[in-house]
Amino acid sequence: MKRYEKYADDVAELIRSGVLGPDQRVPSVRYASQTHGISPSTVFQAYYLLERRGLIRARARSGYFVNSIVGNTPKPFSEPQVSTQVNESTEVDVSELVFSVLDSIKDPNTVPFGSAFPSPMLFPLPRLSRSLASASRDMDPRMVVTDMSPGNPQLRRQIALRYMVNGLVLPMEELLITNGALEALNLCLQAVTEPGDLVAIEAPTFYACLQVLERLKLKAVEIPTHPRDGIDLGVLKQALERHPIKVCWCMTTFQNPTGALVPEARKRELVELLREHQVPLIEDDAYAELYYGPQAPKPAKAFDTDGLVMHCGSFSKSLAPGYRIGWVAAGRYAQKIERLKLMTSLCASMPAQAAIADYLQHGGYDRHLRKLRYALEDQQRAMLGAIGRYFPAQTRVSQPVGGYFLWVELPEPLDSLKVFQVALAQGISIAPGPIFSPTRRFGNCIRLNYGSPWTTASEKAMETLGRIIRSLLDN
Amino acid sequence: MKRYEKYADDVAELIRSGVLGPDQRVPSVRYASQTHGISPSTVFQAYYLLERRGLIRARARSGYFVNSIVGNTPKPFSEPQVSTQVNESTEVDVSELVFSVLDSIKDPNTVPFGSAFPSPMLFPLPRLSRSLASASRDMDPRMVVTDMSPGNPQLRRQIALRYMVNGLVLPMEELLITNGALEALNLCLQAVTEPGDLVAIEAPTFYACLQVLERLKLKAVEIPTHPRDGIDLGVLKQALERHPIKVCWCMTTFQNPTGALVPEARKRELVELLREHQVPLIEDDAYAELYYGPQAPKPAKAFDTDGLVMHCGSFSKSLAPGYRIGWVAAGRYAQKIERLKLMTSLCASMPAQAAIADYLQHGGYDRHLRKLRYALEDQQRAMLGAIGRYFPAQTRVSQPVGGYFLWVELPEPLDSLKVFQVALAQGISIAPGPIFSPTRRFGNCIRLNYGSPWTTASEKAMETLGRIIRSLLDN
Repeated sequence: MKRYEKYADDVAELIRSGVLGPDQRVPSVRYASQTHGISPSTVFQAYYLLERRGLIRARARSGYFVNSIVGNTPKPFSEPQVSTQVNESTEVDVSELVFSVLDSIKDPNTVPFGSAFPSPMLFPLPRLSRSLASASRDMDPRMVVTDMSPGNPQLRRQIALRYMVNGLVLPMEELLITNGALEALNLCLQAVTEPGDLVAIEAPTFYACLQVLERLKLKAVEIPTHPRDGIDLGVLKQALERHPIKVCWCMTTFQNPTGALVPEARKRELVELLREHQVPLIEDDAYAELYYGPQAPKPAKAFDTDGLVMHCGSFSKSLAPGYRIGWVAAGRYAQKIERLKLMTSLCASMPAQAAIADYLQHGGYDRHLRKLRYALEDQQRAMLGAIGRYFPAQTRVSQPVGGYFLWVELPEPLDSLKVFQVALAQGISIAPGPIFSPTRRFGNCIRLNYGSPWTTASEKAMETLGRIIRSLLDN
Repeated sequence: MKRYEKYADDVAELIRSGVLGPDQRVPSVRYASQTHGISPSTVFQAYYLLERRGLIRARARSGYFVNSIVGNTPKPFSEPQVSTQVNESTEVDVSELVFSVLDSIKDPNTVPFGSAFPSPMLFPLPRLSRSLASASRDMDPRMVVTDMSPGNPQLRRQIALRYMVNGLVLPMEELLITNGALEALNLCLQAVTEPGDLVAIEAPTFYACLQVLERLKLKAVEIPTHPRDGIDLGVLKQALERHPIKVCWCMTTFQNPTGALVPEARKRELVELLREHQVPLIEDDAYAELYYGPQAPKPAKAFDTDGLVMHCGSFSKSLAPGYRIGWVAAGRYAQKIERLKLMTSLCASMPAQAAIADYLQHGGYDRHLRKLRYALEDQQRAMLGAIGRYFPAQTRVSQPVGGYFLWVELPEPLDSLKVFQVALAQGISIAPGPIFSPTRRFGNCIRLNYGSPWTTASEKAMETLGRIIRSLLDN
């Protein structure tokens, strides 16, 4: 860690713990430089960093001050409402809508509130690149034949170790490396369904889940999802009794889009309920590492005694988006999924696998993750603050304890697709609610991504967005 | 190119052109060293290399001699027969058999005559690793968002340039980068079929094609394939008239397993025939770069005026097996396939794409390919020679002008699955005929891979294989 990063973290800790309250002045550059024995420019670098994170701001000729939103601010927002129940299964046909949204937000000059990724600037890409160089230099060419699927043994060992630290003992044989979590999820669904089958999903749910269902010609049974506690187990129970559901697809930790974290006891209940019905669970856990609390939340997989849970993870959201390395711990379906993988794309790119294995061993992944979590938590505060300042008073917002998405429920009547279009025309992307549902509900909701360092441009974009929303409401 | 490689190439050229005939002595080390101004150890290195390639052999205390099989040897083998016609479509169910074969040949200590890959020792992996290091160092992190699918623009440009050199002008927009050709082929099939649809395939055909058909629940219509000239257009025509065939899947250049090369005029006819029926062609062209002749054979795609040909290529067989980088030039299906790709695995691994782009620009791909083609051609001669020496006289063998597979038809009655088992028990893998057919035909055929440098172990393995075949025939 560089000196200015260390000092910035110290100051951030003072703010977080409340020692430095809202609007208080942070130590002057001269004072900090003298007391910490660092150069003034190092102090400046630290303050720039904290400013980017939305923790402090400069006032002309008066120095730096703690932002009012940070610190022990009371939670000012109501939670979004739980979605109402839908009793029938639905054919899925949202791909066109999703693609039209995704295509339009590819422009790198757009403010990326609609993006699915955190900013790549938060990742240790230069360090990873060194791992790539050294791992590929040392790669045994014969591994082309021996290390196809299930994947690089060093990488699988490192992943198994991380599970173990979190209290899960998984045999290496269960672990298959895939081209990102998305391929893992695709393979899991293929392993346990035939076209026409029913899949229980959350409402709202991640749109990629809907696209996969559509591609595989599966039908969705939507289960209401609480914006804080996740999938409604009562409704799921009824659905399992009423419908021949083949599999349940669920994000139990920092759900996309709501950010919901299913509490541990309910995860246990979920697994138990599915076990009674012998219905497998596809657990999409791509955000597992992005928790703000002191401890990693356990996945539902931790309570799986029957091998019914297929736990899908990824490095795309926490380390290396472009490397396309994910995995699945597939329980009793491991061999079937490995074979599907061999028939689909043989194996994941070997240099990327070797690089991540090397990085996990030598690169300081945990140190990077700690910094990343602080940054995301700070950025959440900054975005919540901006919502408070610029959005209508009746706005409801989730306040997840991990990940990088806010689920925002706007006052009715509001068409979030309209908000999307108008905002895009002004260079701001958002993710409109209807792409998260096969029945195109959540018309007054939007998902906002706070995965980029907070800048004055972010602040301005939020102001513009608030204005757009108010003017659409007024009309 | 190193000095000893240069000298080895010179000698190989003398042998190839017949200046040095079978069993002739090659220049002595002392003589060569003096006349070429190179050190004796350089000459030794060159002769070791030629020995490994099967071109010369050492005789104790007498120096090196040209092997009898090389040079202008007359072709001593009859071609394998064309498969007979099957008139009905077939459900595909060979995956279990294929997997049991593939699983058993993963052991790196097995003589890899059954492998699907050439030896990775033939590839410039250290040079590629340097490209990986420098390309990933220079990678713009924002490309995570902008360069997902269709893929790295530099790489797509380089591929388009290679098409252009070969006389094909393809718009960049048609090109999508995939996780190897296998994913490309999967996506192509998905783009144009529904479960239950009929697909025209070659007989014999690459087993991965059968596995994909099985996975997607498609039915096969087998079209006889000539071991030299490829798919039988007369039978294909009848099949198109009699069956509602949705797509034709074909390897037109160095077909796996026969090595057949469809002549240019017939490629044109093939495209024309399919155009009349408005049936798309999936052209698997993974071996395109491995031609021994002076010029690259044109693909069927070159004659496509209607955008009906989906041309799938790969770097896995010519440069970087483990990188998993392939592509498809998908004509009118380009957008549909790009979307399927986004739903399946988002994009191919970015460092691997950037590395290959860099290598194509700076690494000397064409020089590498020239050496690779020489090596493969030499190794083919060595294996043909061994078949002549050790296999029964009635053995028929294809003699492809590219690739690295021989299709061997053994005298009847012989069960090649039995040969496979007995050989495997003795540490030698082969690919038995029935894995190349949904109707499990070709019971007396085997595919042999000569993609590894020829060694005394290869020679001994062929001798053992010949003995196994003879003894099974005798029983």
